[in-house]
Amino acid sequence: MEWIKVNIDKLFNFGVEVFKKLGVPEDDAKIVMDVLIASDRRGISSHGVARMRRYVNGIKSGIMKPVAKIEILKETPNTILASGGDGLGQVVGYKVMEMVIKKALDNNVCVGVVRNSNHYGIAGYYAMMALKHDLIGVSLTNSAPLMVPTYGKDAVLGTNPLALAFPAGKEKPIVLDMATSTVPRGKLEVYNRLSKPLPITWATDETGRPTQDAARVLANLLERKGGGLLPLGGADEETGGHKGYGLSFVIDILTGVLSGGAFGPNTYKKKGEPPNICHMFAAMRIDAFMPVEEFKARLDEYINILRNCPKADGATRIYVAGEKEAEKEELHKDFVEIDPKVYEDLKSISEELSVPMEF
Amino acid sequence: MEWIKVNIDKLFNFGVEVFKKLGVPEDDAKIVMDVLIASDRRGISSHGVARMRRYVNGIKSGIMKPVAKIEILKETPNTILASGGDGLGQVVGYKVMEMVIKKALDNNVCVGVVRNSNHYGIAGYYAMMALKHDLIGVSLTNSAPLMVPTYGKDAVLGTNPLALAFPAGKEKPIVLDMATSTVPRGKLEVYNRLSKPLPITWATDETGRPTQDAARVLANLLERKGGGLLPLGGADEETGGHKGYGLSFVIDILTGVLSGGAFGPNTYKKKGEPPNICHMFAAMRIDAFMPVEEFKARLDEYINILRNCPKADGATRIYVAGEKEAEKEELHKDFVEIDPKVYEDLKSISEELSVPMEF
Repeated sequence: MEWIKVNIDKLFNFGVEVFKKLGVPEDDAKIVMDVLIASDRRGISSHGVARMRRYVNGIKSGIMKPVAKIEILKETPNTILASGGDGLGQVVGYKVMEMVIKKALDNNVCVGVVRNSNHYGIAGYYAMMALKHDLIGVSLTNSAPLMVPTYGKDAVLGTNPLALAFPAGKEKPIVLDMATSTVPRGKLEVYNRLSKPLPITWATDETGRPTQDAARVLANLLERKGGGLLPLGGADEETGGHKGYGLSFVIDILTGVLSGGAFGPNTYKKKGEPPNICHMFAAMRIDAFMPVEEFKARLDEYINILRNCPKADGATRIYVAGEKEAEKEELHKDFVEIDPKVYEDLKSISEELSVPMEF
Repeated sequence: MEWIKVNIDKLFNFGVEVFKKLGVPEDDAKIVMDVLIASDRRGISSHGVARMRRYVNGIKSGIMKPVAKIEILKETPNTILASGGDGLGQVVGYKVMEMVIKKALDNNVCVGVVRNSNHYGIAGYYAMMALKHDLIGVSLTNSAPLMVPTYGKDAVLGTNPLALAFPAGKEKPIVLDMATSTVPRGKLEVYNRLSKPLPITWATDETGRPTQDAARVLANLLERKGGGLLPLGGADEETGGHKGYGLSFVIDILTGVLSGGAFGPNTYKKKGEPPNICHMFAAMRIDAFMPVEEFKARLDEYINILRNCPKADGATRIYVAGEKEAEKEELHKDFVEIDPKVYEDLKSISEELSVPMEF
């Protein structure tokens, strides 16, 4: 089925009304919708308005608080420890990254860590907030356990993504935004719908061995029967799987362990319990090292070296991190395209909450 | 051929005398040998005394300076920009990491960036220096171009490793120390000696397509004919190769671009030119977020969750980052084992410089 083009302003206003109806303050609702639509614009539809159904259910069931009581638990000129008050992850993410940026502007470097949060959308959004201040931005999060450690059978690790953003000059900024699994669960869902066999580095079955059977992995994950997504690098040390595993683990140490929130399998909660997801944000002044314009010119030069590098036989183009997403964003100035299933979700939300959907 | 057991004290003293003979100050020579032997002790023989031949040649040819004039080019309470003065990478690495630790102890977080350096050994050494201060340590470096970007034909990127170290309580510290390529060049050399076909995610040939022919890749790299090591994740986006590529790129931005040194293919120099390798070091106070003892207890708990996780069929053990290396280090308290070829190298150095080798 064809994806549906939706006007961004209408989608934004609809979402804001939905969250307001659930008791979310208007300014917070606007933050959430801005993060979600940014994701759809960048072509990362798994983290866009497709998530609204889960957030709506989360708030209605009481595990997510509509009014996030964000608390600063500990603070120095260069660090922040905050609680997200079990609210929407985007709200605390946005607010703490704003504070991190302010402190980095004043004191060169700042690191902020958050606990008691929820899914915050794309990691890249927060890293990119640093760009307009000519700072380097960093954003990490842990997540629900879907990934197995190397040689382990059970999914005890999150796909824990990392994002870094760097301002460029004439070129688009560099934005690396990647999960530490080979692929996210959403990719398995796509292969499942197409009945396509999975590449062997993507997932394991309930015996802990690599499998090509998407349906089996998805069912096992749902019932927590064993197996799950594989770390970047695949199942074995020979192909570097321990590196993806190690990256996921250290991101969880920097978020879940260091913040005092949930980590590893503890992010998987029984019905009614908030998941206590944790994030880390950081920002750094470029001009503590070199003039910003010089940095940007050097990064432009590097981007062009990579772009103009001879192509492998059969390849036509070399991308740099964030380039594909920036091109999609450019394309989606006025509208985004959404999956018909997501459209149905939005329609059911509209009916459930009596919020008119004018698209 | 069997590897040769060598007494650590004798090896250390020999190395110190070698570097002294080349004009390296005694204290600096001791730093270099400590870093190299730490690598051999941890089982990373490619980065241990096997590198002495290259360093000796580097100093003799004049591209590496025996007396490193380390300069602090820019400094704030939280940042350092330094030049390694074309000296041995270990010397500037050690000294700048010491300064970074000092500033982090005083001001919670510090980031130091270095240019005009050389190969600095294992990235993990510097990250681990933070451990005894109960800090989190970070170390990144760029390196000579050996890796291709996704869909590129030429090796224009370094294998740019990253290292993070976290103090634990009863458990060994967590030390993630990994290159962003699937494997280092040394692994191809091993497969070549054994005439073993390479796994398909390791390297490409001169057409830019994945190859299993180790000899061909090594020859191509030497003559810079095209092809090279593949990023973590392999040749395609489908297997996540763009993630390893992205990691390598952002590490080069944080080291080569931000420091004002060489980046990407510019780290490959003509004979006689110093390679201008660049590093980044960072340290952060744990107690800016939570009491150190609480952090360590939480990390211990997480390590045990992973260790005791059910094993995949056929697997017997799940490791955490740095655990294998820590066990090897424990084993090598008095001696290290070195490749007979490396032993021959050391013997030739001994003769060349008239430094007696008493092992």
